[in-house]
Amino acid sequence: MKIIETRLAPNPRRVRIFLAEKGIKVDFEELDLMKKELQTEAFSRINPWQRVPVLVLDDGTVITETMAICRYFEELNPEPALFGKGALGRARIEMWNRRMELGLLFHVAQVFRHLHPAMAELEVPQIKDWAEANKPRVAQQLELMNTQLQQCRYVAGDAYSVADITALVAMDFMRLARIKRPEGLAHVERWYADVSTPFTSSDGV
Amino acid sequence: MKIIETRLAPNPRRVRIFLAEKGIKVDFEELDLMKKELQTEAFSRINPWQRVPVLVLDDGTVITETMAICRYFEELNPEPALFGKGALGRARIEMWNRRMELGLLFHVAQVFRHLHPAMAELEVPQIKDWAEANKPRVAQQLELMNTQLQQCRYVAGDAYSVADITALVAMDFMRLARIKRPEGLAHVERWYADVSTPFTSSDGV
Repeated sequence: MKIIETRLAPNPRRVRIFLAEKGIKVDFEELDLMKKELQTEAFSRINPWQRVPVLVLDDGTVITETMAICRYFEELNPEPALFGKGALGRARIEMWNRRMELGLLFHVAQVFRHLHPAMAELEVPQIKDWAEANKPRVAQQLELMNTQLQQCRYVAGDAYSVADITALVAMDFMRLARIKRPEGLAHVERWYADVSTPFTSSDGV
Repeated sequence: MKIIETRLAPNPRRVRIFLAEKGIKVDFEELDLMKKELQTEAFSRINPWQRVPVLVLDDGTVITETMAICRYFEELNPEPALFGKGALGRARIEMWNRRMELGLLFHVAQVFRHLHPAMAELEVPQIKDWAEANKPRVAQQLELMNTQLQQCRYVAGDAYSVADITALVAMDFMRLARIKRPEGLAHVERWYADVSTPFTSSDGV
């Protein structure tokens, strides 16, 4: 089993943090997306969508899409439960994870892809107006997140979950996308310090 | 229990088809997103993200996000399994559902939101260049889908799943977004006729 990834990209990092939380070790193979290594014919045969991360099982079975890979490991290693427990618990974490994905990570990624000079050859056409339109949405999502984190320790409630992983990766990606964190979001800052510590210092994921 | 929705919108339709496949009856409450009924203070208290569908349980618990709502019903009513069975089966359906969501439905929605005159007041600013940039991606996704449907009866394999629901809703949404279906995708057409029949004619979902 191996995971093909680009270490700097946000989605592979979600998988790495997920695996670290589960205590699962998997071999990683690096492809550099900035060097167009995802657009080769060989990689397109593995994933016609030309994206990482990709999980390749020992029998050659390929699973792509970050959340599909995480769910695969959740099924095989249920503890700690990062997708929640019970019908309502799982629905709540799915809800918050999607709010963080579609409401935060997605908008940060659009700013990065459509504004950063490094993406000029990969995101064609880069549309600056679209990048700018996403910036206020990032700020708006962080405010909604702040309201939630005023009431809960973690994004989806009292337990750490995949929604925290998505939100943390999105916030760190803001640096690369050159989006400043709005000031005055005390609960987001408290949560950010809380969820950043174990990994950025020790495991480096 | 009730579901708040806008009948014409694609995401609520995904939930309706999902429930019809499961044989589950739920009361629906209509809010017209075109009349800005999702932006009222009353609705914002229910869903600060101002989107439908929203599932409201009898005790007032609110679950938003289409896939979170579907997963809630899947947990309580496992048959037929629309999210798959077993670690690999579930991962495969999550993978294909996300490919259909992020690779197809999302791009169709961007074309609709940023080009259709009816959205001028709801999608501010409308960015025509961004809409146009999404059109070739729709065509590209349909080609990848055609390759998959050459090998499998349904989008994620031999069994009907939530990935088919997402893909069907995305394709029907293309009409509203005024995107013509590319010609020559014989396997997509065979699949489309197959999955369209039970609902468009009888249940009307």
